[in-house]
Amino acid sequence: MRADTDLTAPTPFAARMSVEQVEEGLALAPKFDADGLIPCITTDASTGEVLMLGYMNGEALQRTITTGEAHYWSRSRQCLWHKGATSGLIQEVVELRIDDDQDAVWLRVKVASSGASCHVGYRSCFYRSVELGGPSGEPTRLVFTESRKSFDPKDVYGDAPNPTQV
Amino acid sequence: MRADTDLTAPTPFAARMSVEQVEEGLALAPKFDADGLIPCITTDASTGEVLMLGYMNGEALQRTITTGEAHYWSRSRQCLWHKGATSGLIQEVVELRIDDDQDAVWLRVKVASSGASCHVGYRSCFYRSVELGGPSGEPTRLVFTESRKSFDPKDVYGDAPNPTQV
Repeated sequence: MRADTDLTAPTPFAARMSVEQVEEGLALAPKFDADGLIPCITTDASTGEVLMLGYMNGEALQRTITTGEAHYWSRSRQCLWHKGATSGLIQEVVELRIDDDQDAVWLRVKVASSGASCHVGYRSCFYRSVELGGPSGEPTRLVFTESRKSFDPKDVYGDAPNPTQV
Repeated sequence: MRADTDLTAPTPFAARMSVEQVEEGLALAPKFDADGLIPCITTDASTGEVLMLGYMNGEALQRTITTGEAHYWSRSRQCLWHKGATSGLIQEVVELRIDDDQDAVWLRVKVASSGASCHVGYRSCFYRSVELGGPSGEPTRLVFTESRKSFDPKDVYGDAPNPTQV
């Protein structure tokens, strides 16, 4: 939570009391990890394609629920991240799901503009498939599944630092 | 890696050298987190439904690639986990993808038997959706998206400990 969050406001999250309540209950009781984050799988609501895996802190999850637009926690920039605020590629929430032990979120979205969600310019962040099979003595090979980028990252992000860390 | 892994075998993973290589290259160079794990989104290859979010260590990822059946690292049991070894609900890999910065995996699978992947008995671990909208003063409510379980966990797992941790 950011320092300017109103801590007197009622929390939208229930306390985690028992395995039965967490797995079979009707209250949202998310489990955040040691860094205060929960992973979020984001898919295209119409095609089912996985667009990205992001992370949310409590504020990002709360804002996603209340505004209907995807918010994440940027681990590279260490700040709340309203997806599309810079690029225009806003993700409108169609459905938000929580998993059995409530430590992962699945977001089904409709993406604005070009429909892309990947900072490299592709539609999905998962634009390469892994060759299956036995060891060859060489590193496992990748095959591109998208033939061209949906946008030019330089046009959209300019000189902003690349979030990928080696 | 387990102690009995053959560390003299050639690694199937490339070293991470640059942002360009990681994002645009043709060699698998996964990034494991501080615990040695990479998150894995698993979807039903025919319906696109997200079944689960699991985690893999290097050995689990390597075995998934070489055997064509999903292997994970069980964080609750702290061991390599060949999905379906107990339940029969083997996940046959149809496609394996890696994301832009190679720190997340997307597995498209065909599930054996009942087609379920959730230890609670549902088809997907994401069997509840979150009600969207403004704060009501109450915890956010959940709605079940599957009306009945695909199997009875007691029949399949017997007295094995529940992996959900409060």
